[in-house]
Amino acid sequence: MAISEKGKVLLAYSGGLDTSCILAWLIDQGYEVLAYMADIGQEEDFEAAKNKALKIGATQVFIEDLRKEFVEDLVWASVQANCLYEGVYLLGTALARPVICRKQIEIAVREGCQFVSHGCTGKGNDQVRFELGYYALQPDIKVIAPWRDPAFFNRFPGRPALLEYAAAKSIPVVQTASKPWSTDENLYHISFEAGILEDPAVTPPKDMWKLTVDPEDAPDTPERIAIHFQNGIPVKVVNTTDKQTVHRDSLDLFLYLNALGRKHGIGRIDIVENRFIGIKSRGCYETPGGTILRAAHVDLEGLTLDRELRRLKDQYAQRLSEIIYNGLWYSAEREFIMASVESSQATVNGVVNLKLYKGNVIIEGRSSPNSLYDAKIASMDEAGGFNPSDSEGFIKIQSIRLKAFREQKQLLPGNH
Amino acid sequence: MAISEKGKVLLAYSGGLDTSCILAWLIDQGYEVLAYMADIGQEEDFEAAKNKALKIGATQVFIEDLRKEFVEDLVWASVQANCLYEGVYLLGTALARPVICRKQIEIAVREGCQFVSHGCTGKGNDQVRFELGYYALQPDIKVIAPWRDPAFFNRFPGRPALLEYAAAKSIPVVQTASKPWSTDENLYHISFEAGILEDPAVTPPKDMWKLTVDPEDAPDTPERIAIHFQNGIPVKVVNTTDKQTVHRDSLDLFLYLNALGRKHGIGRIDIVENRFIGIKSRGCYETPGGTILRAAHVDLEGLTLDRELRRLKDQYAQRLSEIIYNGLWYSAEREFIMASVESSQATVNGVVNLKLYKGNVIIEGRSSPNSLYDAKIASMDEAGGFNPSDSEGFIKIQSIRLKAFREQKQLLPGNH
Amino acid sequence: MAISEKGKVLLAYSGGLDTSCILAWLIDQGYEVLAYMADIGQEEDFEAAKNKALKIGATQVFIEDLRKEFVEDLVWASVQANCLYEGVYLLGTALARPVICRKQIEIAVREGCQFVSHGCTGKGNDQVRFELGYYALQPDIKVIAPWRDPAFFNRFPGRPALLEYAAAKSIPVVQTASKPWSTDENLYHISFEAGILEDPAVTPPKDMWKLTVDPEDAPDTPERIAIHFQNGIPVKVVNTTDKQTVHRDSLDLFLYLNALGRKHGIGRIDIVENRFIGIKSRGCYETPGGTILRAAHVDLEGLTLDRELRRLKDQYAQRLSEIIYNGLWYSAEREFIMASVESSQATVNGVVNLKLYKGNVIIEGRSSPNSLYDAKIASMDEAGGFNPSDSEGFIKIQSIRLKAFREQKQLLPGNH
Amino acid sequence: MAISEKGKVLLAYSGGLDTSCILAWLIDQGYEVLAYMADIGQEEDFEAAKNKALKIGATQVFIEDLRKEFVEDLVWASVQANCLYEGVYLLGTALARPVICRKQIEIAVREGCQFVSHGCTGKGNDQVRFELGYYALQPDIKVIAPWRDPAFFNRFPGRPALLEYAAAKSIPVVQTASKPWSTDENLYHISFEAGILEDPAVTPPKDMWKLTVDPEDAPDTPERIAIHFQNGIPVKVVNTTDKQTVHRDSLDLFLYLNALGRKHGIGRIDIVENRFIGIKSRGCYETPGGTILRAAHVDLEGLTLDRELRRLKDQYAQRLSEIIYNGLWYSAEREFIMASVESSQATVNGVVNLKLYKGNVIIEGRSSPNSLYDAKIASMDEAGGFNPSDSEGFIKIQSIRLKAFREQKQLLPGNH
Repeated sequence: MAISEKGKVLLAYSGGLDTSCILAWLIDQGYEVLAYMADIGQEEDFEAAKNKALKIGATQVFIEDLRKEFVEDLVWASVQANCLYEGVYLLGTALARPVICRKQIEIAVREGCQFVSHGCTGKGNDQVRFELGYYALQPDIKVIAPWRDPAFFNRFPGRPALLEYAAAKSIPVVQTASKPWSTDENLYHISFEAGILEDPAVTPPKDMWKLTVDPEDAPDTPERIAIHFQNGIPVKVVNTTDKQTVHRDSLDLFLYLNALGRKHGIGRIDIVENRFIGIKSRGCYETPGGTILRAAHVDLEGLTLDRELRRLKDQYAQRLSEIIYNGLWYSAEREFIMASVESSQATVNGVVNLKLYKGNVIIEGRSSPNSLYDAKIASMDEAGGFNPSDSEGFIKIQSIRLKAFREQKQLLPGNH
Repeated sequence: MAISEKGKVLLAYSGGLDTSCILAWLIDQGYEVLAYMADIGQEEDFEAAKNKALKIGATQVFIEDLRKEFVEDLVWASVQANCLYEGVYLLGTALARPVICRKQIEIAVREGCQFVSHGCTGKGNDQVRFELGYYALQPDIKVIAPWRDPAFFNRFPGRPALLEYAAAKSIPVVQTASKPWSTDENLYHISFEAGILEDPAVTPPKDMWKLTVDPEDAPDTPERIAIHFQNGIPVKVVNTTDKQTVHRDSLDLFLYLNALGRKHGIGRIDIVENRFIGIKSRGCYETPGGTILRAAHVDLEGLTLDRELRRLKDQYAQRLSEIIYNGLWYSAEREFIMASVESSQATVNGVVNLKLYKGNVIIEGRSSPNSLYDAKIASMDEAGGFNPSDSEGFIKIQSIRLKAFREQKQLLPGNH
Repeated sequence: MAISEKGKVLLAYSGGLDTSCILAWLIDQGYEVLAYMADIGQEEDFEAAKNKALKIGATQVFIEDLRKEFVEDLVWASVQANCLYEGVYLLGTALARPVICRKQIEIAVREGCQFVSHGCTGKGNDQVRFELGYYALQPDIKVIAPWRDPAFFNRFPGRPALLEYAAAKSIPVVQTASKPWSTDENLYHISFEAGILEDPAVTPPKDMWKLTVDPEDAPDTPERIAIHFQNGIPVKVVNTTDKQTVHRDSLDLFLYLNALGRKHGIGRIDIVENRFIGIKSRGCYETPGGTILRAAHVDLEGLTLDRELRRLKDQYAQRLSEIIYNGLWYSAEREFIMASVESSQATVNGVVNLKLYKGNVIIEGRSSPNSLYDAKIASMDEAGGFNPSDSEGFIKIQSIRLKAFREQKQLLPGNH
Repeated sequence: MAISEKGKVLLAYSGGLDTSCILAWLIDQGYEVLAYMADIGQEEDFEAAKNKALKIGATQVFIEDLRKEFVEDLVWASVQANCLYEGVYLLGTALARPVICRKQIEIAVREGCQFVSHGCTGKGNDQVRFELGYYALQPDIKVIAPWRDPAFFNRFPGRPALLEYAAAKSIPVVQTASKPWSTDENLYHISFEAGILEDPAVTPPKDMWKLTVDPEDAPDTPERIAIHFQNGIPVKVVNTTDKQTVHRDSLDLFLYLNALGRKHGIGRIDIVENRFIGIKSRGCYETPGGTILRAAHVDLEGLTLDRELRRLKDQYAQRLSEIIYNGLWYSAEREFIMASVESSQATVNGVVNLKLYKGNVIIEGRSSPNSLYDAKIASMDEAGGFNPSDSEGFIKIQSIRLKAFREQKQLLPGNH
């Protein structure tokens, strides 16, 4: 039958065994398959992967460098909002998905593909994130998710079946010792899950971690940096120890923070988290640069944001983190929250001084041209235009409802 | 005039210069003064302070060991709720106040005092916390706050005036080199503020920190512990490195965690925070044991709490932290939140394994008899009663409103 | 084949055409079918329906009067929390589901049924509510939802196919003029949707409404009642116009409020709402007694709840309303919220006086033994222990951060 | 002494007894006093008041028509956000304050006044609202609040003392029968409080209400209108009963809605509310046009806003209502929230049809060019691109955590 009988599919391709088999299988099913690889900073031999895809039968291969838009569109938004999922996770995988989806849909539309496809499993978050992105950007797109299709997953119940199929299709397989866990990597972070990590009581092995050195192996001498922010976005990083390294470009400075975080063992976590599909899973993550940036940004907001604004923003940051985690970047609710978050960042300008040392990000001071801190009024040593008797009135007024509540309680049965 | 002409005052007395002068001054004003000292774990020679108070003229001195009730009533509640003010501060000062107030009011009522008094300044949070506690517990109590009374603060515009008055009143003054900052200490934490810290750009000097060693000076060898929780409360701490130290008593185990935190340089922060009275201030804090406990408790909740419950609880926790910070422990809103928080802790049972190393609290695994984690369903390697096609339905349903939103947007002017 | 070859199904049976055909069809498929009817106050000839089910082939029929537990377990909880979905809908259908599910599962377990079944469509909320209830109460129960099963819905594409099948199976069909909308009724409310209502611009016809008279046709003379609450629950309703009618029993008093609401045209709404499955739908509802009760309860809380508690409670009520709407009654998050809500109701005691008139529920006064209202302190005519200069301090302290914010803004570009 | 010895005061003047005496008293104290009257739609003879102020000794009198900016800047924002304080109050007094303050500060600055003054009492919300507005707009302004100044309030302990002073100063006093309550009126609403209303159990007398007829006296025939919105703001009101009245100008259409609300008895409430200063007070309010507008706007949002956006917006609206009530319009938190609210209104376009009848605002249908409602997908009669089996997957996925929670509960003591 003709190759494109069923139409054209744009497959998110990684070069690995799974998506290579999917590529071949989709061709078997009668689709014309175009392959798409997003460079979001992961370690990868893109050229080799491209040749592999062409060899398997992809009619075109698109390799897209999305690193800068990943940093500027997603990572910076997350920094501005101080996103953190379930109080600990910096959302590295989730943040990359909207950028990957967007380009995939753009290419699919441009190339006339009726279908997009991916290699995500049926139990994870990524299938949700990819597909909600696809549908949100192109409501009539059709999605092929082989790992949820019995025709596929019954045929390939495990790795041996994939290897056998790869051999039959002459798909080259790199003979690497398989790790007892799986990973997802981009320039923001790497995740580890599955395999031996599936027992949440097990300590991850020392050699699992990849983007950071073990804090125990990090330098014995701390290193100091200054991060400069404008509108809540880092615009300059200066190494105040070597007094010469300076980075200003968004991607450069982010990669430099990554390098520093890696060297000093910063940004490892190990958690049990809640997937969108209602399953608890155990994940380990390394987010070196992101961990440094978040600490600095939160600190600068302490100096520059009004108290009540900050409380509202912190509440909406929790919600935004869920929105991003759940793959709902392209949603009305994300736009709604970001409208406020962005408006709040006009004053988040200034510099934060940090010390990096064996896993620690230590704040050593901060300053801002838009500080709300008033040394005179804060001082315990001078009056500073502050009348202490105002405090008395403030307290007395605050106490009114507490007194009423006490009296109310005393009248309740059992409270006398 | 007779000593008690104006009535009886129960003064929260610290033994220091300020409250000693206040004691003498209140007597001068015609009050009978009783002194009250709360032992909440701070470093203090209580016996010497008692004698000093009596010598100055206190008619009675009450020294109360509140350490256990501080831990069990306040610290444990904060651990259960994962309280954290403005995303960073563990609330060490604020948590002690309700315990101190409660005993002070109890004694004041018992001893027939019409007044209570304290030595807090007019710009800080503590005046608010003490007085809201007083009024909430005993609505008709009268409060004397000398540092807000012009008769007092105009007479004592600075330390020299206090020293002169002390000399005149034969109040012994300990000749310690005055530190260029002020502190508040209890068994949960120590705070540093004012003085040289009033410039938020200044790095705190190395010799300021008191409850923890500098991470750089901490042992090069990590130490491992296991914390056992029951209903979200730590009930056993085991040193899994020495394999013999075990603590079960609430106060003992908390002090042991403090000692470990101190040794490994854990729990230092340096922030600009928002006081209840609307001023930004800069504070440094050390909370060694509390930092370890919070990390462990949050982690165990990852394993044992339902996702949606946890989100609600995290929202409540932010609000509860503000309530505690603002001195509103004895309020309807605190009781409202704690009713839910306590109900949620029935399943927070289990053990968390931790590694302590140079400022880091590293989670190394956790387990619980009430885990919500289902290895079979979470596994990427087996179906586990999970039908992948369910995910497809889930995603399709989730996408309905995203598609509608996209179509809506495309009709708006400027979106085509 | 033997009747129970495939096992036993407990079918939620209504006596109507759909569930009668489902009953017959399930028997056709080889199941033994038991029928279950919940009396939640809807208009129904239960005896006739029972005979019909038996005639069709049900091996047993269970008719359960759940009216009292519906009122006491669900309606009262909703009254305590002031539940309201999307600011307008009193959740009448959603509130009935947990009671119906619970009894269905109880019977299914007792009778050894492996399956439960219902006649809900595949686009609505009720399928979700029923099934989440089933799974939450009995995780290993199996659910048969014929209207989502192609074998069923393809065989019965419309009413004629059902009628034909009914004829073939000798299922008696009542010849009522079919209404151009569908309804769901219980003692709390009735809903109208679908059919001609599917155009949200269309005004519902006057003869659609069933549980209330048109306000235009309601009596020209108002009627007054007093509702007495204990712990936020109505315990007595007195007609203060006729000065003799009094109801104290939960079910009686609720039905009496319904009768009054009906008579005075109270509780109609017409909205476009968001279903859990992401579809917008248009619904009209009548909730006569519930509308009166909510107005009275909210009003009494104004008198008896602390301000800050009330704000928290109002936030959680919004979330609770979503939880109930989405069929998540049997969830950790509902228990979490209700723990706080219930704790808050200890002071919600007292009486509210109301006037009912042509669609209006008019509050005419309220009183409580646990009032937080202090006439002396509230009075504009006397000082009431209130020192006006306290307000000055309160305002000055509140203004500190506003002033700082103004000064900060003036430094931003474009603000001078 | 010279008239301006102490400087210039701009007094918010009403023409009544209180502010007339304040005017005279301030002059007595040595201030030059300028009088300022804001026309926000209240009933008032501004010319007479002006002459009175000049006669008493004001050196200048400013009468400012702020009606349009009140409607466009404050009322419209409140409509967009659906503001409602404590679930019932439309914030009529609070909304007027920012407009009055802003002009007062503008004039004070322009005229070189060091002081502003007002006639608010020391127990109410308005002192807070005015002064927080003053300070937020002009941080170094000085405020004179005579009713909080013992020199004033001790001299004028009641109405007779004011009358005596007025006589001595030849201040004309209008001999109106004093009402046993006090009011605040503007074009949005009127409030009633104090006097006989201070007992929350007392029903307000029929002749108290001023801006609306009693629903019992309203026409027996309903009247229908259509309100057209653009970006959440009403831009056209059409009377669909008389088929000819049309209003498009912001002020005109608002006043027309007021007239309709008045005629049909719409917008009365009677509540116990929480003042910012912690006192509960009882207030009655009439907000005729605002009540109609809110109902219409909420309804249109049902059709045009995404579900999750709406939930966030509803949460924000609760907080915004508190912000406005508390006089914090000129704050960082208000700007933060309004950034999102405004961004959300781009799609709130369309028309809502309403019936007005004896206190009822009845929605009769709505439509929008930006509707999110999809009749095809919502329909119970057709598949509409909706696959019922998707719902099954959706439900199954949602049930995963509920099942886990049930199993967890069963293991807890006391749950078997």
